Amino acid sequence: MRPLDALFEFLSIPSVSTDPAHKEDVRRAAFWLKGRLEALGFQVEVAETPGHPVVFAEKRVSAQAPTLLIYGHYDVQPPEPLELWETPPFAPTLKEGRIYARGASDDKGQIYAHIAAVEALGEALGVNVKFLIEGEEEIGSPHLPDFVRENRDRLEADVILVSDGAMFAPKTPTLTYGLRGLVYLEVLLEGAARDLHSGVYGGAAPNPLQALGWMVAQLKGEDHRVRIPGFYDRVRPVSEEEKALWPRVDEEAFKQSIGLQALWGEAEHSLLERLWSRPTLDLNGVYGGFQGKGSKTVIPAQAGFKFSMRLVPDQDPHEIAALAEAYLKAIAPPGIRVRVVRHGLGRPVLTDPQSPLMRLAAEALEEVWGRRPVYTREGGSIPIVADLVEVLKAPVVLMGFGLHDDNLHAPNEKLDLLNFEKGIEASQAFLKRLRQAGLKGLSRPA
Amino acid sequence: MRPLDALFEFLSIPSVSTDPAHKEDVRRAAFWLKGRLEALGFQVEVAETPGHPVVFAEKRVSAQAPTLLIYGHYDVQPPEPLELWETPPFAPTLKEGRIYARGASDDKGQIYAHIAAVEALGEALGVNVKFLIEGEEEIGSPHLPDFVRENRDRLEADVILVSDGAMFAPKTPTLTYGLRGLVYLEVLLEGAARDLHSGVYGGAAPNPLQALGWMVAQLKGEDHRVRIPGFYDRVRPVSEEEKALWPRVDEEAFKQSIGLQALWGEAEHSLLERLWSRPTLDLNGVYGGFQGKGSKTVIPAQAGFKFSMRLVPDQDPHEIAALAEAYLKAIAPPGIRVRVVRHGLGRPVLTDPQSPLMRLAAEALEEVWGRRPVYTREGGSIPIVADLVEVLKAPVVLMGFGLHDDNLHAPNEKLDLLNFEKGIEASQAFLKRLRQAGLKGLSRPA
Repeated sequence: MRPLDALFEFLSIPSVSTDPAHKEDVRRAAFWLKGRLEALGFQVEVAETPGHPVVFAEKRVSAQAPTLLIYGHYDVQPPEPLELWETPPFAPTLKEGRIYARGASDDKGQIYAHIAAVEALGEALGVNVKFLIEGEEEIGSPHLPDFVRENRDRLEADVILVSDGAMFAPKTPTLTYGLRGLVYLEVLLEGAARDLHSGVYGGAAPNPLQALGWMVAQLKGEDHRVRIPGFYDRVRPVSEEEKALWPRVDEEAFKQSIGLQALWGEAEHSLLERLWSRPTLDLNGVYGGFQGKGSKTVIPAQAGFKFSMRLVPDQDPHEIAALAEAYLKAIAPPGIRVRVVRHGLGRPVLTDPQSPLMRLAAEALEEVWGRRPVYTREGGSIPIVADLVEVLKAPVVLMGFGLHDDNLHAPNEKLDLLNFEKGIEASQAFLKRLRQAGLKGLSRPA
Repeated sequence: MRPLDALFEFLSIPSVSTDPAHKEDVRRAAFWLKGRLEALGFQVEVAETPGHPVVFAEKRVSAQAPTLLIYGHYDVQPPEPLELWETPPFAPTLKEGRIYARGASDDKGQIYAHIAAVEALGEALGVNVKFLIEGEEEIGSPHLPDFVRENRDRLEADVILVSDGAMFAPKTPTLTYGLRGLVYLEVLLEGAARDLHSGVYGGAAPNPLQALGWMVAQLKGEDHRVRIPGFYDRVRPVSEEEKALWPRVDEEAFKQSIGLQALWGEAEHSLLERLWSRPTLDLNGVYGGFQGKGSKTVIPAQAGFKFSMRLVPDQDPHEIAALAEAYLKAIAPPGIRVRVVRHGLGRPVLTDPQSPLMRLAAEALEEVWGRRPVYTREGGSIPIVADLVEVLKAPVVLMGFGLHDDNLHAPNEKLDLLNFEKGIEASQAFLKRLRQAGLKGLSRPA
């Protein structure tokens, strides 16, 4: 099947994992993968979990060959706000060399590039390949850690390849050796037993929206420092040696690329430090009261906000979540009941950018792009990567084909066709090098 | 027509003035009033404005008789959140002696009580009656001030009666002699040109939701003092003599009535001062980012909040709006574009609780309820009252039949059937006394 045709089929399934209304669509995406991978000779299981299923597929070619486990996800972010899409999010459209669809870059296009690479190699594969493709990445992978622990033997691999990331810049092959962790919380605030008229009760009744403002202002100061006590205690400083590996970045170009008038963040840290090696906190949503057009003079009974913290080594997501919860209760104003819900936790990841495995990956990228890759960390999180590394005790390669202007989690998500095609080539080149290196070539010199 | 049957017809029209989708329903309510009043011998005009129409009706009985102008509104608040209504908001329901419907108390039930009083008096009316019933009260009466100024001659009256308020407590006839003013603003915040992934950009990109928190926290401090410079400059202190007129209030009962754990407000002022004679500021709505179930790791490009300020003599709404707008721009964080939209302005009102006219009104209430009325101010706003008094140079009586637990602006709005019936009687008793007093009886002793 032509890779682009297959990808378009895959992208047309609205596998929005956070929305219960799309539960069946998420399943449909899992079974679509099963069909595709079985056609390529894989043994495939759509494994049930308490949430959305995990697709696990395996193709053994030789007991002597290295085994590669490729991780990705088939679920996508919600497409809202729909009115801002120029083409429908689940009607994939090729326009001016770009594939527009929800999931094009995050992560269907990237995971499918590896499937297409296996298909292209055919009998020349020469490496045992396993696919682990989950349906809950966009909601924090709540059930995958258990699945990985329970299926440790089946998942066993010599190398883990993760393809859910971005290149540092267009036409810049990139190897990522670090990811931030995540704690995502929702805070529900309750005042009176019912909505109140703001004229009749204003001046005496607790207002959950005002409480929201006070609490949000106390989570992060105008100096952009997170105010949760203990938040920074375990943050590992970045060495000058490591920073020397980082690419240069043009702050003005960065600002222009997303239409900023000013940058935010800790003044004493560089832009890349703020994005990669410093933890941070961001509000992701607020709600409460009247949101329609015009005015309504109400003091709502309830309000709420969602926020997430990005963590770096050696912060522990469970510890940070507990610190945040305790702090939120401590700063809740009198008369406001506060409830905190956890939506997702993930540990940060940091690997050695100069291991033998990373060198193989670098050669593969250089062959395809004609230039050496750059080494980056990612500000985003793929919480399961930390679990995979810990449970499988195998080294990980983070090789992404997306771009930072792909509109991940936003309207008009896209993947450049060039990157999809180069991704397929790079995956083939990496598989070939793994076959050539064999198990010995992966071991670190003593 | 039986008053209750007529009221149910009136209440079944969803005349939600803030929602453009209900534009035709608002007109329908105006023409329903026209039909009803014409049947009672009034000359009625449904007068067009740039927004919703004004219903003006007039019935002259004698050039020597006093003229009473009765003000009310036929528009209603939005019914949302619909899922919290026990009966549909526009299917009026009589249950356990209460009329449930959006607008039952605010203000259709109240204005209709006066129409029913005129109908009951029939040939015995003896007073010239004018009705001014607008369709934009719930959106701040944007066009009524112009209408009043342009129709000064037609509206001329000796007494203005306003029936859009509440009794201080059940079975407690109440005369209100003060209303707070209003400034309602909406603040729109913009950061990046598009929604951003909070992992990829978190730590460096401006977040309009965090800006919302910082700004809201700076509008009102945790001491419940409004932080807008100059906000309190013109606040007129309340005399001890005036406070002596006020009813006693049980703070615990107040808290229990709306399910509060704690009261908010300026500690140095009593509960009634905070509600009646002190200005305040309340958030009425917030929006931005992901509001669905679960999580979405987004830094939204936009966010916003709506808030209103309740004003007291001698604060000027135009001055306060300008002070607020300047302050909001001053506290906007770098990298965030701020736009402020005005949704409604109204001046506070304060009249003499011991004028001859108020004494007539007090006698009418005492006749119907068998006890003397209490004198109160209202925390809410009826911005047009200030304009009516200023333009028509006539004294105003504020006689409300609602209760504070009528769920105004909230789900399950209701009006007690008893209060609707007593309202009709009280309106008749007041009209009779006006006829008996004649023009002379209204003038203040020199």
